[in-house]
Amino acid sequence: MNKLTVIKVGGKIVEEAETLQALLNDFATIEGHKVLVHGGGRSATKIAAQLGIETQMVNGRRITDADMLRVVTMVYGGLVNKNIVAGLQARGINAVGLTGADMNVILSDKRLVKDIDYGFVGDVKQVDGERLASLIQSGIVPVMAPLTHDGKGNILNTNADTIAGETAKALATYFDVTLVYCFEKKGVLRDEADDDSVISHINRQQFAELVEQGVVQGGMIPKLENAFQAIDAGVKEVIITAADAIDGCQGTKIR
Amino acid sequence: MNKLTVIKVGGKIVEEAETLQALLNDFATIEGHKVLVHGGGRSATKIAAQLGIETQMVNGRRITDADMLRVVTMVYGGLVNKNIVAGLQARGINAVGLTGADMNVILSDKRLVKDIDYGFVGDVKQVDGERLASLIQSGIVPVMAPLTHDGKGNILNTNADTIAGETAKALATYFDVTLVYCFEKKGVLRDEADDDSVISHINRQQFAELVEQGVVQGGMIPKLENAFQAIDAGVKEVIITAADAIDGCQGTKIR
Repeated sequence: MNKLTVIKVGGKIVEEAETLQALLNDFATIEGHKVLVHGGGRSATKIAAQLGIETQMVNGRRITDADMLRVVTMVYGGLVNKNIVAGLQARGINAVGLTGADMNVILSDKRLVKDIDYGFVGDVKQVDGERLASLIQSGIVPVMAPLTHDGKGNILNTNADTIAGETAKALATYFDVTLVYCFEKKGVLRDEADDDSVISHINRQQFAELVEQGVVQGGMIPKLENAFQAIDAGVKEVIITAADAIDGCQGTKIR
Repeated sequence: MNKLTVIKVGGKIVEEAETLQALLNDFATIEGHKVLVHGGGRSATKIAAQLGIETQMVNGRRITDADMLRVVTMVYGGLVNKNIVAGLQARGINAVGLTGADMNVILSDKRLVKDIDYGFVGDVKQVDGERLASLIQSGIVPVMAPLTHDGKGNILNTNADTIAGETAKALATYFDVTLVYCFEKKGVLRDEADDDSVISHINRQQFAELVEQGVVQGGMIPKLENAFQAIDAGVKEVIITAADAIDGCQGTKIR
Protein backbone atom coordinates (compact mmCIF):
# COMPACT_ATOMS: atom_id res chain seq x y z
CA MET A 1 0.00 0.00 0.00
CA ASN A 2 1.05 3.61 -0.51
CA LYS A 3 2.36 5.58 2.41
CA LEU A 4 0.21 8.33 3.95
CA THR A 5 1.19 10.73 6.72
CA VAL A 6 -1.47 12.40 8.87
CA ILE A 7 -0.02 15.36 10.73
CA LYS A 8 -1.79 17.16 13.53
CA VAL A 9 -0.50 20.58 14.47
CA GLY A 10 -1.78 22.63 17.37
CA GLY A 11 -3.03 26.15 17.37
CA LYS A 12 0.07 28.10 18.25
CA ILE A 13 2.10 26.89 15.28
CA VAL A 14 -0.54 27.63 12.66
CA GLU A 15 -1.57 30.93 14.19
CA GLU A 16 1.72 32.80 14.01
CA ALA A 17 2.84 33.85 10.55
CA GLU A 18 6.47 32.83 11.02
CA THR A 19 5.95 29.37 12.52
CA LEU A 20 3.15 28.72 10.01
CA GLN A 21 5.45 29.42 7.05
CA ALA A 22 8.11 27.12 8.53
CA LEU A 23 5.52 24.39 9.09
CA LEU A 24 4.17 24.67 5.55
CA ASN A 25 7.71 24.46 4.16
CA ASP A 26 8.35 21.30 6.18
CA PHE A 27 4.95 19.83 5.32
CA ALA A 28 5.52 20.45 1.61
CA THR A 29 8.69 18.33 1.70
CA ILE A 30 6.97 15.25 3.16
CA GLU A 31 6.93 12.56 0.51
CA GLY A 32 3.89 10.50 -0.37
CA HIS A 33 0.28 11.19 0.40
CA LYS A 34 -0.52 13.45 3.33
CA VAL A 35 -3.23 15.07 5.43
CA LEU A 36 -2.88 18.10 7.71
CA VAL A 37 -5.17 18.50 10.73
CA HIS A 38 -4.99 21.85 12.50
CA GLY A 39 -6.24 23.59 15.62
CA GLY A 40 -6.79 27.27 16.16
CA GLY A 41 -7.83 27.71 19.76
CA ARG A 42 -5.69 30.73 20.55
CA SER A 43 -7.07 32.71 17.61
CA ALA A 44 -10.61 31.69 18.52
CA THR A 45 -10.10 32.89 22.09
CA LYS A 46 -8.59 36.16 20.89
CA ILE A 47 -11.29 36.92 18.31
CA ALA A 48 -14.04 35.86 20.74
CA ALA A 49 -12.64 38.35 23.27
CA GLN A 50 -12.61 41.11 20.63
CA LEU A 51 -16.27 40.30 19.94
CA GLY A 52 -17.06 40.45 23.66
CA ILE A 53 -17.56 36.68 23.96
CA GLU A 54 -15.97 35.08 26.98
CA THR A 55 -14.05 31.82 26.56
CA GLN A 56 -14.84 29.13 29.10
CA MET A 57 -12.67 26.02 29.27
CA VAL A 58 -13.43 22.89 31.31
CA ASN A 59 -10.79 20.11 31.48
CA GLY A 60 -8.97 21.78 28.61
CA ARG A 61 -12.11 21.72 26.44
CA ARG A 62 -13.89 24.79 25.12
CA ILE A 63 -17.51 25.31 26.15
CA THR A 64 -19.14 26.05 22.81
CA ASP A 65 -22.43 27.91 23.07
CA ALA A 66 -24.13 29.34 19.96
CA ASP A 67 -21.97 32.50 19.96
CA MET A 68 -18.75 30.55 20.44
CA LEU A 69 -19.81 28.14 17.69
CA ARG A 70 -20.01 31.10 15.30
CA VAL A 71 -16.51 32.13 16.35
CA VAL A 72 -14.89 28.71 15.92
CA THR A 73 -16.71 28.18 12.62
CA MET A 74 -15.24 31.46 11.38
CA VAL A 75 -11.79 31.02 12.81
CA TYR A 76 -11.14 27.30 12.30
CA GLY A 77 -13.12 26.80 9.09
CA GLY A 78 -12.32 30.19 7.55
CA LEU A 79 -9.33 32.14 8.80
CA VAL A 80 -6.91 29.40 9.84
CA ASN A 81 -7.96 26.77 7.32
CA LYS A 82 -8.01 28.96 4.21
CA ASN A 83 -4.68 30.59 4.99
CA ILE A 84 -3.10 27.15 5.28
CA VAL A 85 -4.71 26.05 2.02
CA ALA A 86 -3.53 29.16 0.16
CA GLY A 87 -0.05 28.74 1.67
CA LEU A 88 0.14 25.13 0.51
CA GLN A 89 -1.08 26.02 -2.99
CA ALA A 90 1.77 28.54 -3.16
CA ARG A 91 4.11 25.59 -2.47
CA GLY A 92 2.62 23.46 -5.25
CA ILE A 93 0.54 21.31 -2.89
CA ASN A 94 -3.02 20.90 -4.16
CA ALA A 95 -4.76 21.29 -0.80
CA VAL A 96 -8.47 21.35 -0.01
CA GLY A 97 -9.80 22.70 3.27
CA LEU A 98 -12.39 20.48 4.86
CA THR A 99 -14.63 20.46 7.89
CA GLY A 100 -16.47 17.25 8.66
CA ALA A 101 -19.54 18.74 6.95
CA ASP A 102 -17.73 19.08 3.63
CA MET A 103 -18.50 15.98 1.54
CA ASN A 104 -19.84 14.59 4.81
CA VAL A 105 -16.35 13.34 5.65
CA ILE A 106 -16.84 13.36 9.44
CA LEU A 107 -20.20 12.89 11.10
CA SER A 108 -20.44 13.47 14.86
CA ASP A 109 -22.90 13.21 17.70
CA LYS A 110 -23.45 16.33 19.74
CA ARG A 111 -21.98 15.48 23.13
CA LEU A 112 -24.64 14.51 25.64
CA VAL A 113 -24.96 16.71 28.69
CA LYS A 114 -23.83 14.88 31.82
CA ASP A 115 -22.12 16.95 34.51
CA ILE A 116 -21.07 19.59 32.04
CA ASP A 117 -22.85 21.04 29.03
CA TYR A 118 -20.09 21.48 26.48
CA GLY A 119 -22.61 22.92 24.02
CA PHE A 120 -22.02 22.44 20.29
CA VAL A 121 -19.22 19.92 20.70
CA GLY A 122 -19.03 16.78 18.59
CA ASP A 123 -17.87 13.27 19.35
CA VAL A 124 -16.81 11.62 16.11
CA LYS A 125 -19.21 8.92 14.93
CA GLN A 126 -18.05 8.15 11.42
CA VAL A 127 -15.23 9.13 9.06
CA ASP A 128 -15.78 8.52 5.34
CA GLY A 129 -12.41 6.93 4.66
CA GLU A 130 -13.43 5.90 1.16
CA ARG A 131 -14.25 9.46 0.09
CA LEU A 132 -11.06 10.82 1.67
CA ALA A 133 -8.93 8.06 0.15
CA SER A 134 -10.38 8.72 -3.28
CA LEU A 135 -9.65 12.46 -2.96
CA ILE A 136 -6.11 11.76 -1.77
CA GLN A 137 -5.49 9.26 -4.56
CA SER A 138 -6.50 11.93 -7.06
CA GLY A 139 -3.60 14.08 -5.80
CA ILE A 140 -5.45 16.24 -3.30
CA VAL A 141 -4.12 17.03 0.18
CA PRO A 142 -6.91 17.46 2.75
CA VAL A 143 -6.44 20.20 5.34
CA MET A 144 -8.87 19.45 8.11
CA ALA A 145 -10.32 22.00 10.51
CA PRO A 146 -11.42 20.85 13.99
CA LEU A 147 -15.09 21.05 13.06
CA THR A 148 -17.57 18.30 12.22
CA HIS A 149 -21.34 18.20 11.78
CA ASP A 150 -24.30 16.28 13.14
CA GLY A 151 -26.13 15.67 9.86
CA LYS A 152 -28.97 17.82 11.12
CA GLY A 153 -27.54 21.12 9.95
CA ASN A 154 -25.29 21.90 12.92
CA ILE A 155 -21.56 22.42 12.80
CA LEU A 156 -19.90 20.94 15.92
CA ASN A 157 -16.62 21.97 17.53
CA THR A 158 -14.43 18.85 17.62
CA ASN A 159 -11.07 18.07 19.18
CA ALA A 160 -8.30 18.17 16.56
CA ASP A 161 -6.37 15.26 18.15
CA THR A 162 -9.50 13.14 17.82
CA ILE A 163 -10.04 14.17 14.21
CA ALA A 164 -6.44 13.26 13.39
CA GLY A 165 -6.71 9.90 15.18
CA GLU A 166 -10.06 8.93 13.66
CA THR A 167 -9.00 10.06 10.19
CA ALA A 168 -5.78 8.05 10.44
CA LYS A 169 -7.77 4.96 11.49
CA ALA A 170 -10.30 5.37 8.68
CA LEU A 171 -7.49 5.68 6.12
CA ALA A 172 -5.57 2.66 7.42
CA THR A 173 -7.63 0.44 5.09
CA TYR A 174 -6.27 2.30 2.07
CA PHE A 175 -2.76 3.36 3.02
CA ASP A 176 0.21 2.58 5.27
CA VAL A 177 -0.56 5.37 7.72
CA THR A 178 1.86 7.25 9.93
CA LEU A 179 0.14 9.58 12.40
CA VAL A 180 2.21 12.48 13.72
CA TYR A 181 1.06 14.50 16.72
CA CYS A 182 2.97 17.75 17.05
CA PHE A 183 3.26 19.51 20.37
CA GLU A 184 5.72 21.86 22.09
CA LYS A 185 8.39 19.27 22.90
CA LYS A 186 10.53 17.10 20.64
CA GLY A 187 8.83 13.99 21.98
CA VAL A 188 7.86 12.23 25.19
CA LEU A 189 10.58 13.25 27.65
CA ARG A 190 12.20 11.02 30.25
CA ASP A 191 13.08 14.16 32.22
CA GLU A 192 10.59 17.04 31.89
CA ALA A 193 13.43 19.51 32.56
CA ASP A 194 15.64 18.14 29.78
CA ASP A 195 14.33 18.80 26.28
CA ASP A 196 16.81 16.36 24.82
CA SER A 197 15.71 13.39 26.95
CA VAL A 198 13.28 12.18 24.27
CA ILE A 199 12.21 8.55 24.62
CA SER A 200 12.69 7.19 21.11
CA HIS A 201 10.23 4.27 21.27
CA ILE A 202 7.34 3.32 23.51
CA ASN A 203 5.34 0.10 23.36
CA ARG A 204 2.38 -0.81 25.56
CA GLN A 205 4.44 -2.46 28.26
CA GLN A 206 6.88 0.44 28.43
CA PHE A 207 3.93 2.85 28.55
CA ALA A 208 2.51 1.08 31.60
CA GLU A 209 5.93 1.20 33.26
CA LEU A 210 6.46 4.88 32.42
CA VAL A 211 3.05 5.77 33.88
CA GLU A 212 3.82 3.74 37.02
CA GLN A 213 7.19 5.49 37.37
CA GLY A 214 5.44 8.86 37.00
CA VAL A 215 7.56 9.69 33.91
CA VAL A 216 4.45 9.92 31.74
CA GLN A 217 1.68 11.91 33.39
CA GLY A 218 -1.08 14.47 32.90
CA GLY A 219 -2.25 15.24 29.37
CA MET A 220 0.33 12.90 27.87
CA ILE A 221 -1.54 9.84 29.19
CA PRO A 222 -4.68 10.28 27.03
CA LYS A 223 -2.46 11.30 24.09
CA LEU A 224 -0.57 8.03 24.33
CA GLU A 225 -3.74 6.02 24.93
CA ASN A 226 -5.12 7.50 21.69
CA ALA A 227 -1.88 6.57 19.98
CA PHE A 228 -2.16 2.92 21.04
CA GLN A 229 -5.80 2.83 19.96
CA ALA A 230 -4.75 4.07 16.52
CA ILE A 231 -2.12 1.32 16.32
CA ASP A 232 -4.74 -1.26 17.33
CA ALA A 233 -6.96 0.03 14.53
CA GLY A 234 -4.32 -0.53 11.88
CA VAL A 235 -2.26 2.68 11.88
CA LYS A 236 1.37 1.62 11.29
CA GLU A 237 3.09 4.14 13.46
CA VAL A 238 2.28 7.10 15.70
CA ILE A 239 4.94 9.73 16.31
CA ILE A 240 4.80 12.39 18.98
CA THR A 241 7.15 15.23 18.21
CA ALA A 242 7.65 18.97 17.76
CA ALA A 243 6.20 20.84 14.79
CA ASP A 244 9.66 21.74 13.55
CA ALA A 245 10.55 18.04 13.41
CA ILE A 246 7.65 16.55 11.47
CA ASP A 247 9.93 14.21 9.61
CA GLY A 248 9.64 12.29 12.88
CA CYS A 249 13.32 11.44 13.17
CA GLN A 250 13.70 13.00 16.60
CA GLY A 251 10.32 12.17 18.05
CA THR A 252 8.86 9.39 20.15
CA LYS A 253 7.59 6.46 18.09
CA ILE A 254 4.63 4.49 19.38
CA ARG A 255 4.26 0.97 18.03
CA MET B 1 -24.87 16.71 -21.96
CA ASN B 2 -26.19 16.69 -18.44
CA LYS B 3 -27.90 19.74 -17.05
CA LEU B 4 -26.13 21.87 -14.44
CA THR B 5 -27.54 24.88 -12.60
CA VAL B 6 -25.23 27.50 -11.10
CA ILE B 7 -27.09 29.66 -8.61
CA LYS B 8 -25.72 32.85 -7.14
CA VAL B 9 -27.41 34.19 -4.04
CA GLY B 10 -26.57 37.46 -2.38
CA GLY B 11 -25.64 38.14 1.17
CA LYS B 12 -28.98 39.01 2.69
CA ILE B 13 -30.64 35.70 1.84
CA VAL B 14 -27.88 33.48 3.20
CA GLU B 15 -27.30 35.60 6.29
CA GLU B 16 -30.72 35.42 7.88
CA ALA B 17 -31.67 32.06 9.38
CA GLU B 18 -35.21 32.02 8.01
CA THR B 19 -34.47 33.01 4.41
CA LEU B 20 -31.43 30.71 4.41
CA GLN B 21 -33.55 27.69 5.39
CA ALA B 22 -36.09 28.54 2.66
CA LEU B 23 -33.31 28.92 0.10
CA LEU B 24 -31.71 25.60 1.07
CA ASN B 25 -35.10 23.88 0.79
CA ASP B 26 -35.58 25.32 -2.69
CA PHE B 27 -32.01 24.56 -3.73
CA ALA B 28 -32.35 20.95 -2.55
CA THR B 29 -35.30 20.41 -4.92
CA ILE B 30 -33.43 21.55 -8.04
CA GLU B 31 -32.92 18.54 -10.26
CA GLY B 32 -29.65 17.63 -11.89
CA HIS B 33 -26.19 18.83 -11.04
CA LYS B 34 -25.84 22.13 -9.24
CA VAL B 35 -23.47 24.70 -7.77
CA LEU B 36 -24.27 27.38 -5.19
CA VAL B 37 -22.27 30.61 -5.09
CA HIS B 38 -22.90 32.85 -2.10
CA GLY B 39 -22.09 36.31 -0.81
CA GLY B 40 -21.92 37.45 2.78
CA GLY B 41 -21.19 41.15 2.71
CA ARG B 42 -23.66 42.20 5.38
CA SER B 43 -22.24 39.74 7.92
CA ALA B 44 -18.71 40.81 7.05
CA THR B 45 -19.60 44.46 7.61
CA LYS B 46 -21.30 43.65 10.91
CA ILE B 47 -18.49 41.49 12.29
CA ALA B 48 -15.87 43.96 11.06
CA ALA B 49 -17.68 46.71 12.99
CA GLN B 50 -17.75 44.53 16.12
CA LEU B 51 -13.99 44.06 15.72
CA GLY B 52 -13.52 47.82 15.33
CA ILE B 53 -12.70 47.57 11.62
CA GLU B 54 -14.37 50.14 9.41
CA THR B 55 -15.94 49.05 6.14
CA GLN B 56 -15.11 51.22 3.15
CA MET B 57 -16.99 50.70 -0.10
CA VAL B 58 -16.11 52.29 -3.44
CA ASN B 59 -18.46 51.78 -6.42
CA GLY B 60 -20.22 49.04 -4.45
CA ARG B 61 -16.92 47.19 -3.92
CA ARG B 62 -15.32 46.54 -0.54
CA ILE B 63 -11.86 47.97 0.10
CA THR B 64 -10.04 44.93 1.48
CA ASP B 65 -6.97 45.78 3.53
CA ALA B 66 -5.17 43.11 5.57
CA ASP B 67 -7.61 43.40 8.50
CA MET B 68 -10.68 43.27 6.25
CA LEU B 69 -9.19 40.29 4.42
CA ARG B 70 -9.07 38.41 7.72
CA VAL B 71 -12.71 39.29 8.30
CA VAL B 72 -13.97 38.18 4.87
CA THR B 73 -11.86 35.03 5.03
CA MET B 74 -13.52 34.16 8.35
CA VAL B 75 -17.03 35.19 7.40
CA TYR B 76 -17.28 34.05 3.78
CA GLY B 77 -15.02 31.00 3.97
CA GLY B 78 -16.02 29.93 7.48
CA LEU B 79 -19.25 31.21 8.96
CA VAL B 80 -21.48 31.57 5.91
CA ASN B 81 -20.00 28.78 3.82
CA LYS B 82 -19.91 26.06 6.48
CA ASN B 83 -23.42 26.78 7.69
CA ILE B 84 -24.70 26.39 4.13
CA VAL B 85 -22.74 23.16 3.70
CA ALA B 86 -24.06 21.70 6.97
CA GLY B 87 -27.59 22.80 6.04
CA LEU B 88 -27.35 21.08 2.66
CA GLN B 89 -25.94 17.89 4.21
CA ALA B 90 -29.00 17.84 6.48
CA ARG B 91 -31.09 17.85 3.28
CA GLY B 92 -29.21 14.93 1.76
CA ILE B 93 -27.12 17.11 -0.57
CA ASN B 94 -23.45 16.13 -0.48
CA ALA B 95 -22.03 19.65 -0.51
CA VAL B 96 -18.43 20.79 -0.29
CA GLY B 97 -17.49 24.35 0.60
CA LEU B 98 -14.81 25.81 -1.62
CA THR B 99 -12.84 28.99 -1.95
CA GLY B 100 -10.78 29.42 -5.08
CA ALA B 101 -7.73 28.25 -3.11
CA ASP B 102 -9.30 24.86 -2.37
CA MET B 103 -8.08 22.40 -5.02
CA ASN B 104 -6.87 25.52 -6.81
CA VAL B 105 -10.30 25.85 -8.46
CA ILE B 106 -10.10 29.61 -9.01
CA LEU B 107 -6.87 31.48 -9.46
CA SER B 108 -6.99 35.29 -9.50
CA ASP B 109 -4.76 38.26 -10.01
CA LYS B 110 -4.64 40.81 -7.23
CA ARG B 111 -6.28 43.88 -8.72
CA LEU B 112 -3.76 46.45 -9.91
CA VAL B 113 -3.89 49.81 -8.20
CA LYS B 114 -5.10 52.51 -10.61
CA ASP B 115 -7.20 55.32 -9.15
CA ILE B 116 -8.28 53.20 -6.22
CA ASP B 117 -6.40 50.62 -4.16
CA TYR B 118 -8.98 47.93 -3.53
CA GLY B 119 -6.42 45.97 -1.52
CA PHE B 120 -6.66 42.17 -1.44
CA VAL B 121 -9.24 41.91 -4.20
CA GLY B 122 -8.99 39.34 -6.96
CA ASP B 123 -9.86 39.45 -10.63
CA VAL B 124 -10.51 35.90 -11.80
CA LYS B 125 -7.77 34.57 -14.08
CA GLN B 126 -8.58 30.88 -14.37
CA VAL B 127 -11.28 28.45 -13.24
CA ASP B 128 -10.38 24.75 -13.19
CA GLY B 129 -13.53 23.52 -14.92
CA GLU B 130 -12.15 20.00 -15.28
CA ARG B 131 -11.58 19.57 -11.55
CA LEU B 132 -14.99 21.05 -10.71
CA ALA B 133 -16.74 18.93 -13.34
CA SER B 134 -15.10 15.78 -12.02
CA LEU B 135 -16.19 16.63 -8.44
CA ILE B 136 -19.73 17.36 -9.63
CA GLN B 137 -19.90 14.17 -11.68
CA SER B 138 -18.95 12.22 -8.56
CA GLY B 139 -22.12 13.52 -6.89
CA ILE B 140 -20.68 16.48 -5.01
CA VAL B 141 -22.36 19.91 -4.92
CA PRO B 142 -19.82 22.75 -4.70
CA VAL B 143 -20.76 25.68 -2.44
CA MET B 144 -18.49 28.52 -3.45
CA ALA B 145 -17.47 31.40 -1.20
CA PRO B 146 -16.54 34.74 -2.80
CA LEU B 147 -12.83 34.21 -2.16
CA THR B 148 -10.07 33.18 -4.54
CA HIS B 149 -6.27 33.08 -4.27
CA ASP B 150 -3.28 34.40 -6.15
CA GLY B 151 -1.15 31.24 -6.09
CA LYS B 152 1.39 33.08 -3.95
CA GLY B 153 -0.25 32.30 -0.63
CA ASN B 154 -2.79 35.13 -0.51
CA ILE B 155 -6.53 34.76 -0.27
CA LEU B 156 -8.29 37.44 -2.36
CA ASN B 157 -11.76 38.88 -1.87
CA THR B 158 -13.64 38.28 -5.12
CA ASN B 159 -17.03 39.39 -6.40
CA ALA B 160 -19.59 36.59 -6.12
CA ASP B 161 -21.36 37.50 -9.39
CA THR B 162 -18.03 37.15 -11.17
CA ILE B 163 -17.29 33.82 -9.53
CA ALA B 164 -20.72 32.54 -10.59
CA GLY B 165 -20.28 33.79 -14.15
CA GLU B 166 -16.74 32.47 -14.60
CA THR B 167 -17.63 29.13 -13.02
CA ALA B 168 -20.67 28.78 -15.30
CA LYS B 169 -18.49 29.51 -18.33
CA ALA B 170 -15.80 27.04 -17.27
CA LEU B 171 -18.40 24.32 -16.77
CA ALA B 172 -20.13 24.95 -20.11
CA THR B 173 -17.69 22.51 -21.75
CA TYR B 174 -18.98 19.70 -19.55
CA PHE B 175 -22.66 20.47 -18.94
CA ASP B 176 -25.69 22.29 -20.32
CA VAL B 177 -25.37 25.19 -17.89
CA THR B 178 -28.13 27.46 -16.60
CA LEU B 179 -26.82 30.40 -14.57
CA VAL B 180 -29.27 31.96 -12.11
CA TYR B 181 -28.55 35.34 -10.53
CA CYS B 182 -30.78 35.97 -7.54
CA PHE B 183 -31.50 39.48 -6.35
CA GLU B 184 -34.30 41.30 -4.51
CA LYS B 185 -36.75 41.45 -7.42
CA LYS B 186 -38.51 38.71 -9.37
CA GLY B 187 -36.62 39.71 -12.49
CA VAL B 188 -35.76 42.69 -14.65
CA LEU B 189 -38.73 45.01 -14.27
CA ARG B 190 -40.34 47.09 -17.04
CA ASP B 191 -41.67 49.42 -14.34
CA GLU B 192 -39.44 49.77 -11.26
CA ALA B 193 -42.54 50.55 -9.14
CA ASP B 194 -44.39 47.40 -10.21
CA ASP B 195 -42.87 44.15 -8.90
CA ASP B 196 -45.00 42.14 -11.28
CA SER B 197 -43.80 43.87 -14.43
CA VAL B 198 -41.06 41.28 -15.01
CA ILE B 199 -39.68 41.17 -18.55
CA SER B 200 -39.74 37.47 -19.36
CA HIS B 201 -37.04 37.39 -22.06
CA ILE B 202 -34.25 39.72 -23.12
CA ASN B 203 -31.95 39.26 -26.09
CA ARG B 204 -29.09 41.55 -27.11
CA GLN B 205 -31.20 43.75 -29.35
CA GLN B 206 -33.90 44.13 -26.71
CA PHE B 207 -31.21 44.90 -24.12
CA ALA B 208 -29.87 47.76 -26.24
CA GLU B 209 -33.41 49.10 -26.67
CA LEU B 210 -34.20 48.80 -22.95
CA VAL B 211 -31.03 50.69 -22.04
CA GLU B 212 -31.85 53.39 -24.61
CA GLN B 213 -35.38 53.69 -23.20
CA GLY B 214 -33.95 54.00 -19.68
CA VAL B 215 -35.89 50.91 -18.53
CA VAL B 216 -32.65 49.09 -17.72
CA GLN B 217 -30.19 51.26 -15.80
CA GLY B 218 -27.67 51.43 -12.97
CA GLY B 219 -26.32 48.17 -11.57
CA MET B 220 -28.54 46.11 -13.85
CA ILE B 221 -26.49 47.11 -16.91
CA PRO B 222 -23.23 45.35 -15.86
CA LYS B 223 -25.30 42.41 -14.57
CA LEU B 224 -26.90 41.95 -17.98
CA GLU B 225 -23.62 42.53 -19.79
CA ASN B 226 -22.13 39.70 -17.70
CA ALA B 227 -25.13 37.58 -18.60
CA PHE B 228 -24.60 38.08 -22.34
CA GLN B 229 -20.87 37.34 -21.96
CA ALA B 230 -21.77 34.06 -20.26
CA ILE B 231 -24.10 33.19 -23.15
CA ASP B 232 -21.34 34.01 -25.65
CA ALA B 233 -19.04 31.67 -23.73
CA GLY B 234 -21.43 28.73 -24.08
CA VAL B 235 -23.76 29.05 -21.09
CA LYS B 236 -27.21 27.96 -22.32
CA GLU B 237 -29.34 30.34 -20.34
CA VAL B 238 -28.98 33.07 -17.74
CA ILE B 239 -31.91 33.83 -15.47
CA ILE B 240 -32.24 36.89 -13.26
CA THR B 241 -34.80 36.35 -10.52
CA ALA B 242 -35.59 36.43 -6.82
CA ALA B 243 -34.10 33.91 -4.39
CA ASP B 244 -37.52 32.50 -3.59
CA ALA B 245 -38.04 31.74 -7.27
CA ILE B 246 -34.87 29.86 -8.19
CA ASP B 247 -36.79 27.45 -10.40
CA GLY B 248 -36.56 30.43 -12.77
CA CYS B 249 -40.16 30.24 -13.96
CA GLN B 250 -40.94 33.82 -13.03
CA GLY B 251 -37.61 35.44 -13.79
CA THR B 252 -36.06 37.21 -16.73
CA LYS B 253 -34.37 34.84 -19.18
CA ILE B 254 -31.34 36.07 -21.07
CA ARG B 255 -30.52 34.21 -24.26
